[in-house]
Amino acid sequence: MSTATSKPAFSQDEADIRAIIEAAHPVHHDKNAAAIVARYAPGAPIFNLAPPLVHHGVDLQEKQAWLDTWEGPIDLESRDFHITVSGDFALAHGFYRMSGTPKATGRPISFWMRETLGLNRQAGAWKIVHEHTSVPFYMDGSLRPAFDLQP
Amino acid sequence: MSTATSKPAFSQDEADIRAIIEAAHPVHHDKNAAAIVARYAPGAPIFNLAPPLVHHGVDLQEKQAWLDTWEGPIDLESRDFHITVSGDFALAHGFYRMSGTPKATGRPISFWMRETLGLNRQAGAWKIVHEHTSVPFYMDGSLRPAFDLQP
Repeated sequence: MSTATSKPAFSQDEADIRAIIEAAHPVHHDKNAAAIVARYAPGAPIFNLAPPLVHHGVDLQEKQAWLDTWEGPIDLESRDFHITVSGDFALAHGFYRMSGTPKATGRPISFWMRETLGLNRQAGAWKIVHEHTSVPFYMDGSLRPAFDLQP
Repeated sequence: MSTATSKPAFSQDEADIRAIIEAAHPVHHDKNAAAIVARYAPGAPIFNLAPPLVHHGVDLQEKQAWLDTWEGPIDLESRDFHITVSGDFALAHGFYRMSGTPKATGRPISFWMRETLGLNRQAGAWKIVHEHTSVPFYMDGSLRPAFDLQP
């Protein structure tokens, strides 16, 4: 493996994975549940913001129902994603800011969350095989989610 | 790469990584901050239960101070860890149950959290290069951490 042959391959993989990370923006803005589901390998173990502890894959109707709890678009912004590729496997971690207006309250919210992704190259295309999304919580007795943090 | 040579190598790597996952148990029980720190690569980006969004590496004195906020031992149990190894890189995810008595309240607590680990083989030894630990929160308006979930 010379540097000359390995570097471009890594860069293309990194570019492909970065495209998957950023593909989260339009699919949420457009509330396209099918396009959200297409980013994941079937049955991928997902640790979401909300219970249960783990989801196995993204259920299309459940995702559509969740998208429908928001008024208008859900806007995502990504920041500081670091990507490591090793063969057909990759790890990415960084931050997403989610902004939108839940129908339940009618008030706009915006907060940063942590995102970790495991990806696997399957039939030439990178798919998400594990996702962990979270917001830390204050251990000051309040236990409230730390929605006010900036990366 | 024959199956005969690649399988045992994978199994040994998996066993080594499982040992690192389970090494979290005695080092927390014994409140050994130095042994906790030794499991990580220096500067590893860590997404913890508590703010900030990211810690860069584990600070020995900060970890010792946190350990000292607990009365007696902190007990960990691990469950359902899945490990994927690709060359010198590995991803592991599963659940830890943490049990102990915070000095602040004097009452025992016990809850399951989600754990994702990125690991890198460095000079022959696996080190944690990324950690993401979290508890989901209820989106029922209470925003309380879901401490009552079971894997």
